[in-house]
Amino acid sequence: MSLSQLSFDIASLQAAYRNGVTVREVIAEARRRCLADTHHAHIRVLSTDELEPFVARLDGVDPASLALFGVPFAIKDNIDLAHIPTTAGCPDFAFTPVESAFVVRQLLAAGAVPVSKTNLDQFATGLNGTRSPFGACRNAINPDFISGGSSSGSGVAVALGHVSFALGTDTAGSGRVPASFNGLVGLKPTLGLLSASGVLPACRSVETPSILALTAADAQAVLGVAAAFDEADAYSRPAQPLGVDFSDGPFRFGVPREEDLEFFGNGAAAALFADAVKRLESLGGTAVTIDLSPFLEAAKLLYEGPWVAERYVAIQAFIDAHPQAVFPPVRTIIEGGRSKSAADAFAGAYRLKALRRVCDRVWDAVDCMLTPTAGTIYRIEEMEADPIRLNSHLGRYTNFVNLLDHSAVAVPAGVLASGDADGLPWGVTLGAPAHKDLALLRLADRFHRATGGTLGATTVDVESTPACTGLPGGEIGTSGTGTVRVAVCG
Amino acid sequence: MSLSQLSFDIASLQAAYRNGVTVREVIAEARRRCLADTHHAHIRVLSTDELEPFVARLDGVDPASLALFGVPFAIKDNIDLAHIPTTAGCPDFAFTPVESAFVVRQLLAAGAVPVSKTNLDQFATGLNGTRSPFGACRNAINPDFISGGSSSGSGVAVALGHVSFALGTDTAGSGRVPASFNGLVGLKPTLGLLSASGVLPACRSVETPSILALTAADAQAVLGVAAAFDEADAYSRPAQPLGVDFSDGPFRFGVPREEDLEFFGNGAAAALFADAVKRLESLGGTAVTIDLSPFLEAAKLLYEGPWVAERYVAIQAFIDAHPQAVFPPVRTIIEGGRSKSAADAFAGAYRLKALRRVCDRVWDAVDCMLTPTAGTIYRIEEMEADPIRLNSHLGRYTNFVNLLDHSAVAVPAGVLASGDADGLPWGVTLGAPAHKDLALLRLADRFHRATGGTLGATTVDVESTPACTGLPGGEIGTSGTGTVRVAVCG
Repeated sequence: MSLSQLSFDIASLQAAYRNGVTVREVIAEARRRCLADTHHAHIRVLSTDELEPFVARLDGVDPASLALFGVPFAIKDNIDLAHIPTTAGCPDFAFTPVESAFVVRQLLAAGAVPVSKTNLDQFATGLNGTRSPFGACRNAINPDFISGGSSSGSGVAVALGHVSFALGTDTAGSGRVPASFNGLVGLKPTLGLLSASGVLPACRSVETPSILALTAADAQAVLGVAAAFDEADAYSRPAQPLGVDFSDGPFRFGVPREEDLEFFGNGAAAALFADAVKRLESLGGTAVTIDLSPFLEAAKLLYEGPWVAERYVAIQAFIDAHPQAVFPPVRTIIEGGRSKSAADAFAGAYRLKALRRVCDRVWDAVDCMLTPTAGTIYRIEEMEADPIRLNSHLGRYTNFVNLLDHSAVAVPAGVLASGDADGLPWGVTLGAPAHKDLALLRLADRFHRATGGTLGATTVDVESTPACTGLPGGEIGTSGTGTVRVAVCG
Repeated sequence: MSLSQLSFDIASLQAAYRNGVTVREVIAEARRRCLADTHHAHIRVLSTDELEPFVARLDGVDPASLALFGVPFAIKDNIDLAHIPTTAGCPDFAFTPVESAFVVRQLLAAGAVPVSKTNLDQFATGLNGTRSPFGACRNAINPDFISGGSSSGSGVAVALGHVSFALGTDTAGSGRVPASFNGLVGLKPTLGLLSASGVLPACRSVETPSILALTAADAQAVLGVAAAFDEADAYSRPAQPLGVDFSDGPFRFGVPREEDLEFFGNGAAAALFADAVKRLESLGGTAVTIDLSPFLEAAKLLYEGPWVAERYVAIQAFIDAHPQAVFPPVRTIIEGGRSKSAADAFAGAYRLKALRRVCDRVWDAVDCMLTPTAGTIYRIEEMEADPIRLNSHLGRYTNFVNLLDHSAVAVPAGVLASGDADGLPWGVTLGAPAHKDLALLRLADRFHRATGGTLGATTVDVESTPACTGLPGGEIGTSGTGTVRVAVCG
């Protein structure tokens, strides 16, 4: 197989390295793919000179000694990579960090190679991918459609096979919606497992870096490296033992009541969701109907409640001084946080606390929840014509997840078979309490294989990739993978 | 012994009941004592008619079958007792609840009898006891001095022997400072162990009902009954196992650095604190010097940060409509919460989260912390002349405790032996992580006995009372005490 046809899923890369392909060749190929992009996925592809130190440090290293040896990845451009500008999608805001984000440093130490900083809805405010002065990010499968956001470029870069995986961030669904729209697995880890040090916050109290990958096995490999307690991040939490692993079944999964399901007119998506319920049943699951209304009420708090003030706090000095530098719908949303009072903030916190008490009762009845990731998808021109309302549709099933401290995995559930979006991938999300990431990934993997199909926008069949069989050591934080010194690249 | 001389510590009461004294007699005596009060401890003493149902339901009941059989208690007047007005220290705010607070219902079910609603710093905003239109509450030992607050009447009523114990509330020290100034044990339980349902909040996210008692054993008996998970209170938390019980020693206790200790010129208090350190060492403790500065920084957040907005949220409709009905210093403080922004609230939450990370490291080095409860005490006229500044002195060592989710017990540490406040009791606080309440109570009891002296303003020697030897069942929530129906009194 020629290098230009090499799949960047991690197993294929590892096989290539075993067969004598060099890191230099792979990273050059990844760079070529990124530079050829026409989807507005990338804000900045690293130069050959910038890449060289990351490549050189792997010279002579045994590929088997590092979990992510020579694996090319992309970084959402609100996460710091040392000596490369962080724009957060806003050129006037850009700064050049001297140190990489904590989570990036974990990946570098495991041998991964950063190739690009990716496009995003500015300041991670949006779920659709069009809110960027670097150009509306286009869907990897059909460029007339939105990519999803705010980790738009991260999703598209992975789906197009530019890189093996990408880091996103996820507050309201920003790591899951682009996974769904581009045929990927999107892991929204338990809050605090991945450090936020060196990540520009959107909603710091309910946000996490996220992982976009071609398969659940790849997402798990990245999680095993990326998750590490960070003393310097006050929101960092140590991994907890998984406990009961329900992923092999039998398990009980929650399904929203008929009246809580909303596909915004997309009948093909509704059909795929019905199929997904049956598929999970075929994997050993028992469907339990759940009342989604308290979850939907919690979801509303994220934008209608005080949490939008966190977005304002994050860039207060900048937006106060340069309001015109902020992309219009993003500015409207973030400036809305300025007028909220502390009384609003505490009243919102009380309301969330009460809703969480109600919502958490669901875990007495089910091991995990199944929802659409997003009910439907839109064309770029539709989204640009109605940017606030249509965006809010995309977050219906994702907005509550971090507020309620769930772990979640978005996974492909098939291809829309009719309607305007015919041929586009569509996905569901498996959610569970915090610290169930590994069980969710394994179940998502079983579901993904049972769904079948190709990875992202590639031609690689999911069934040809290795199954998600667990981390070395069994639990997050126990793998003790090798590390490589990254002194030059920070 | 005549009834008028009967000590109301729980062991003495139980002995009296075994010897044939009736509940009716004890409660009538408690009522007489309350009505004779000249300290402004009580806002409303229940009438004989109002008391009768609580007494009648105990007729024919075996005293040994109920943990708090016939035990008279008082209730801070921001906690609901069904059919009796709750004033929160503000007559214009008063309302008459139809149901008792959840925590009161637990006590009633265990046979305790509510005798009075007690005076408080209005809306539980204050640590000194003078901020009440019902009259400045006077110290039980020397009425020229402040009682401490905001649970002022609860402290004074117990210290004077009007009742066996009292419920207070504690956000900033409101349950501990009055214990210290009146020679009592003040348990500030782990947040969430005692339900806040039916309690008018001051700072809902960092507040708990508290227990004022003559001895640690009595506080423990009340805790064993009062602590119960409340599904309706979103901040309620189930009790957790105590784990290592350090109370019998050897143990390590933190002592603030010399430069962090501030007694506001009260040399007698400084001497008592030095004695307290030696006493804890004699009980098997090893003193470890700790840097109190991050704790003091956290303490400042409570009034200088956004949390004051919680006080505003709690009575927003009332204070907006009737600002002149609020006691002047209380109004100034609470209205200060109106102008805080949600951005302030989140910035404060981030700061606290970071400080908590730093402060929690202390638990790697020590099992518990020893601090003064309040550095000094003031005369009522001094406090009224400088009501904000002197009040803030009282909270130096107590304000950080709930923000950092500690459990804490205030315990007498001797009598001030010189200076203006000669002859007044003075106390220290033992603090530990959440859910260490039982260990703290046992250690506080050993300390109390080693200190010696009389209980509150009574003539009963601490050494004549039973030691604090643990709850039936060993842990909070495992005792399975009997209950009595309270249908009439709700």
